[in-house]
Amino acid sequence: MSTKKLSVGVAGLGRMGKRHALNFHQNVPRATLVAVSSPDASERQWAAENLAPHGVTVYESYDDMLAHKGLEAICVASATSVHAEQANKAIEKGKHVLCEKPLGTTVEVVSVLSFPPEHTAAKRPDLKVMCGFSRRFDASYRDAHAKMQQGLIGRPAILRSQTCDVLDPSGFFVAYAQFSGGIFVDCSIHDIDLALWFFDEETTKVKSVHAVGITAVEPDLRKHNDRDNAVGTVEFYDGRIAYLYASRMMAAGQEDSTEIIGTKGKLSVNLLPAENHVKIYTPGGIRQELPQTYWDRFRAAFTTEAIEFTESVLEDKPVPIKLTSAVAAVKIGAALQESMIKGTKIWFDEQGNRTEKAQL
Amino acid sequence: MSTKKLSVGVAGLGRMGKRHALNFHQNVPRATLVAVSSPDASERQWAAENLAPHGVTVYESYDDMLAHKGLEAICVASATSVHAEQANKAIEKGKHVLCEKPLGTTVEVVSVLSFPPEHTAAKRPDLKVMCGFSRRFDASYRDAHAKMQQGLIGRPAILRSQTCDVLDPSGFFVAYAQFSGGIFVDCSIHDIDLALWFFDEETTKVKSVHAVGITAVEPDLRKHNDRDNAVGTVEFYDGRIAYLYASRMMAAGQEDSTEIIGTKGKLSVNLLPAENHVKIYTPGGIRQELPQTYWDRFRAAFTTEAIEFTESVLEDKPVPIKLTSAVAAVKIGAALQESMIKGTKIWFDEQGNRTEKAQL
Amino acid sequence: MSTKKLSVGVAGLGRMGKRHALNFHQNVPRATLVAVSSPDASERQWAAENLAPHGVTVYESYDDMLAHKGLEAICVASATSVHAEQANKAIEKGKHVLCEKPLGTTVEVVSVLSFPPEHTAAKRPDLKVMCGFSRRFDASYRDAHAKMQQGLIGRPAILRSQTCDVLDPSGFFVAYAQFSGGIFVDCSIHDIDLALWFFDEETTKVKSVHAVGITAVEPDLRKHNDRDNAVGTVEFYDGRIAYLYASRMMAAGQEDSTEIIGTKGKLSVNLLPAENHVKIYTPGGIRQELPQTYWDRFRAAFTTEAIEFTESVLEDKPVPIKLTSAVAAVKIGAALQESMIKGTKIWFDEQGNRTEKAQL
Amino acid sequence: MSTKKLSVGVAGLGRMGKRHALNFHQNVPRATLVAVSSPDASERQWAAENLAPHGVTVYESYDDMLAHKGLEAICVASATSVHAEQANKAIEKGKHVLCEKPLGTTVEVVSVLSFPPEHTAAKRPDLKVMCGFSRRFDASYRDAHAKMQQGLIGRPAILRSQTCDVLDPSGFFVAYAQFSGGIFVDCSIHDIDLALWFFDEETTKVKSVHAVGITAVEPDLRKHNDRDNAVGTVEFYDGRIAYLYASRMMAAGQEDSTEIIGTKGKLSVNLLPAENHVKIYTPGGIRQELPQTYWDRFRAAFTTEAIEFTESVLEDKPVPIKLTSAVAAVKIGAALQESMIKGTKIWFDEQGNRTEKAQL
Repeated sequence: MSTKKLSVGVAGLGRMGKRHALNFHQNVPRATLVAVSSPDASERQWAAENLAPHGVTVYESYDDMLAHKGLEAICVASATSVHAEQANKAIEKGKHVLCEKPLGTTVEVVSVLSFPPEHTAAKRPDLKVMCGFSRRFDASYRDAHAKMQQGLIGRPAILRSQTCDVLDPSGFFVAYAQFSGGIFVDCSIHDIDLALWFFDEETTKVKSVHAVGITAVEPDLRKHNDRDNAVGTVEFYDGRIAYLYASRMMAAGQEDSTEIIGTKGKLSVNLLPAENHVKIYTPGGIRQELPQTYWDRFRAAFTTEAIEFTESVLEDKPVPIKLTSAVAAVKIGAALQESMIKGTKIWFDEQGNRTEKAQL
Repeated sequence: MSTKKLSVGVAGLGRMGKRHALNFHQNVPRATLVAVSSPDASERQWAAENLAPHGVTVYESYDDMLAHKGLEAICVASATSVHAEQANKAIEKGKHVLCEKPLGTTVEVVSVLSFPPEHTAAKRPDLKVMCGFSRRFDASYRDAHAKMQQGLIGRPAILRSQTCDVLDPSGFFVAYAQFSGGIFVDCSIHDIDLALWFFDEETTKVKSVHAVGITAVEPDLRKHNDRDNAVGTVEFYDGRIAYLYASRMMAAGQEDSTEIIGTKGKLSVNLLPAENHVKIYTPGGIRQELPQTYWDRFRAAFTTEAIEFTESVLEDKPVPIKLTSAVAAVKIGAALQESMIKGTKIWFDEQGNRTEKAQL
Repeated sequence: MSTKKLSVGVAGLGRMGKRHALNFHQNVPRATLVAVSSPDASERQWAAENLAPHGVTVYESYDDMLAHKGLEAICVASATSVHAEQANKAIEKGKHVLCEKPLGTTVEVVSVLSFPPEHTAAKRPDLKVMCGFSRRFDASYRDAHAKMQQGLIGRPAILRSQTCDVLDPSGFFVAYAQFSGGIFVDCSIHDIDLALWFFDEETTKVKSVHAVGITAVEPDLRKHNDRDNAVGTVEFYDGRIAYLYASRMMAAGQEDSTEIIGTKGKLSVNLLPAENHVKIYTPGGIRQELPQTYWDRFRAAFTTEAIEFTESVLEDKPVPIKLTSAVAAVKIGAALQESMIKGTKIWFDEQGNRTEKAQL
Repeated sequence: MSTKKLSVGVAGLGRMGKRHALNFHQNVPRATLVAVSSPDASERQWAAENLAPHGVTVYESYDDMLAHKGLEAICVASATSVHAEQANKAIEKGKHVLCEKPLGTTVEVVSVLSFPPEHTAAKRPDLKVMCGFSRRFDASYRDAHAKMQQGLIGRPAILRSQTCDVLDPSGFFVAYAQFSGGIFVDCSIHDIDLALWFFDEETTKVKSVHAVGITAVEPDLRKHNDRDNAVGTVEFYDGRIAYLYASRMMAAGQEDSTEIIGTKGKLSVNLLPAENHVKIYTPGGIRQELPQTYWDRFRAAFTTEAIEFTESVLEDKPVPIKLTSAVAAVKIGAALQESMIKGTKIWFDEQGNRTEKAQL
């Protein structure tokens, strides 16, 4: 094992940016956090207090950070709307990139990162560029995927998956919806990625998508063409179905559950969420507490993600998640969002192009 | 409490007919099983051995059984394709009717039972006519419904429900599919009924349905326009969604689960099925066995159903499930089946008529 | 199957007596409840209203009921302190007996029912005499026992079992303790019986018992030499251990759990109690309700018990639980109670006699 | 937060020594592993390959390591039989000590570490000396303890706890038993520590102990006065009871479970162990895998333990677990072991001295 360390910068110091910065600083032995950037003064103030004393340079400008001497890799953790642009800039400057999900909110934007070859990432095959779908680094999802690959459930045919956030009565996510790309692009993107992973992203091809949604608790979401509860169905050409539920209305906590149903068995992941191993017995019954946020649930996965991204750069190994798969996920997510808003079923031909209606 | 007993006849002695006959014979203190009928000789032979010694008359002809002296009520447990016809005949002869689900396979057929007033059941408001949706009599579903009505989860907005049978490698259900009406009419009808029950069948109105299906284990089902795994979405005009999964491919056992998600909480029913209170610890982990069939899961509910139907007749109380709701369930199930086969989304206007596309 | 029915009388109409009477009346097709007796006027009033209309004769005197014409079997459901006496009288009159647990509170009293041959039950081997340990008729315990017998867990070596009642703040059980024989004879008797059943009552022999107890919520129990929480250990000569916990202080509901640990596996029964299949998701977590009483938990087992006792009489088959085993259970329970009160460990030799200290 | 780091040496490089060494090296940001020692050549070889390249000095002699320049703290992870001796030596040299459990196998040995004042640790109150009971650092146990302290379960009265290892058919633990102090000192010591923690080690005083044990799978353990399954009861003067089960025979995996039962509620920790969030549905039922070892279960707790010990030294804060409590645990464990072997109940007076029999 080489003793070389990777110099990393983190772009964005909002909720996720702070977490990524601390993660690289404390939990990734082979990486050194050297720089962070944020256009927001209060965020930079936080960094000045918490990171600067450990030798981390704090930038206002992302471009300035890119010029930081010795910087080798960027973790893009800014607003979704600038993910693709910042990733592209980093690639142009020869930096490896770990980009928060989703790559972008529309397939047009994210495509500039990927195929065809004139696009940015494709021009620099020497760089490691990965979209960070944290669930692929979670021990339970990995165990399920390994068991599926061992043939334990036969051929996977149906995937049910949900991303359900605890209700945040602050209304935060109404404003957030303006730039998030909507509930399918922001939340269900994880479940779409799981479908691509379990159904084999190399071969499976989307055939149709359909979605419906409601605003059960936040009618104002309609202003941004979004919903607070949504159900989507994704049909694949090889005879598989993924069906998805996303919600911002959970009462008890974060409920991110997945079932993979095969011809000979089924695997479930986190069907009944639990914060820890404690159960509470009081009048009224037996109760278990839940993780309240996806961070509580997936904290360890983010560490594994950062460690493995770092290792892929240092050891020149393929990144764990292909960029094309992340692009495909945005494509499906954006189509689901469109289907939900327009009320139409959307079809794709086997080349991935939108079509009127596929042959049944 | 009156000591009068209700004289009951059971039509059909197949798998369900035998169960209904034994149920009325052994478990319903206020009913007396007086007659059974079946066109099948081996089924009648079974009845000759098991029921005749206890004073039950065995008929070949359903019509002859209807003329049995003193007969007051009929339990229709024959093939789905004759449910509506037999129910109608019974009503015409002035018998109360408990009919197995579904009432029929198409909305046209079942409608003759119901509205408008010239139709059969509507002409005899003195008779008790009920479609037997067993889950409405299950202690767990009742507890969930009561908790929902108490306001424990706020306003129910999303219902996820599945009817998933254990894989039967005999291929039985391929032949069965010819007359069953298809997986949505045969299996998901239970989940549709639950949606109507939890969303309030008096007021909720279906807006659109969409479904997709695959044949993962039984390609021959396509001959009968059926599938072995199917996912459906039902949208209602009052801003609610039910999404359904039906499968004939479960490896571990019967998995009939439901979640009702409201604005302030969630209720789940049978999320993690268990045959009993035993867990088995051996190398490989901790294991719990599952009910293998819906009968194993819902046996007690069928008894409650028969007891309450009997009581509604003897005490002249309303039947627990309105006939109009059972008709509405067939309408939604048949539309989902059509959507799955044709690949189209199907819309309804607020009067319940098919329409091109609803206003969004 | 014969159509003959067994004529049954129930002695005692307290909490359990009412349940046994209704059970024989409604749920046992091959039995007819013909008589009940109680010295308590209000209990007889209940019977006059609920049972007499169905042809059941209500007696004040137990002896008078024994003379009821055609009476064939007695279910003794009176106070524990008269169980043995009433059972003996019934046997002397030639009646079959189903006696509630425990047979009595001291081994001296209950022994008159059993060995040696001059004792009552032994003089009438033609009569069916059984102590009703309801758990032996519970579907889960039966499943566990069958799996153990199939060898699934190797040789059972350790049994942990608990009988834990919900806290009854009325103080009812303080008065009740005066005649109950104490927490080990009243509650743990079930767990002792399970140990005898799973360890094979034909061959296993108790070697030592030890117990400690506290009064955490009801100090007044000390007046009756009883405790509200108690832990006991029973050592057997064939190298097995049962350890028991009984409590009257559970907050959430009835918690009767058992683990059977063998050389190759483990079985647990009801480790995590649940009232039904519903889970409730609200802020604070996921909650499941519990049965509140042993009746809620074991209702179906009492029906099976009555059905099988009836069948053993009508078909002249051995009763499911041997009388000698019920006597052995009282012996162990009374010794545990004594050990708890005196603070001493109590030893038995291999012939079952008390001894100073066994050879180790 | 100071940027100073603590220089740590690890004594012993067996199974636990390796883990502690890697733990301090990789997971404790404020500590630097500077030295390790082992008398075993193959263990030193492992260190030469895995630790030396990162600047860690490898010693054969523990005494030599103590003289390592700049060394500030020792983690004692050698055989239990030398724990106390090595801890004493480190204290004499002015080093802080984190000692693996148990402090020793007899109360005599471990007492030299503690009270009275002439004893080693007591002479150096400036040094941090802690016995590492890993469960006190586990997130679930901490959550349970916090909830107990908040009053959620009233006054804790009964503690049931078990330490149950998966069956190791290699017979390793027969040889291991020669020096381990026996199953109560080696395994149940954790459960005893939990009892002291939840019942308040400052005030609770042991009144009696009693234990029984069997050799269900490893009769050879009797050569070392040990057993493979054991049940112990510990009675405290303030009216509380802890009852314990230890086993080396679990089929499915590591089963370390605890229940704390109070006057108003109950808390359970790890009642139904699970390796992760995956459930496997195959013919035969639904299965979940278990951690196979205590390391799989408590890995994160060991990291927290090392981090907090390091912090207590660097910040001069009290260690999380008092040394007197660790001594008390050995005293109870050794008495349980003696009770099991001799078959006697052992009593203590309120001053902690052995006595004939306490006043009841």
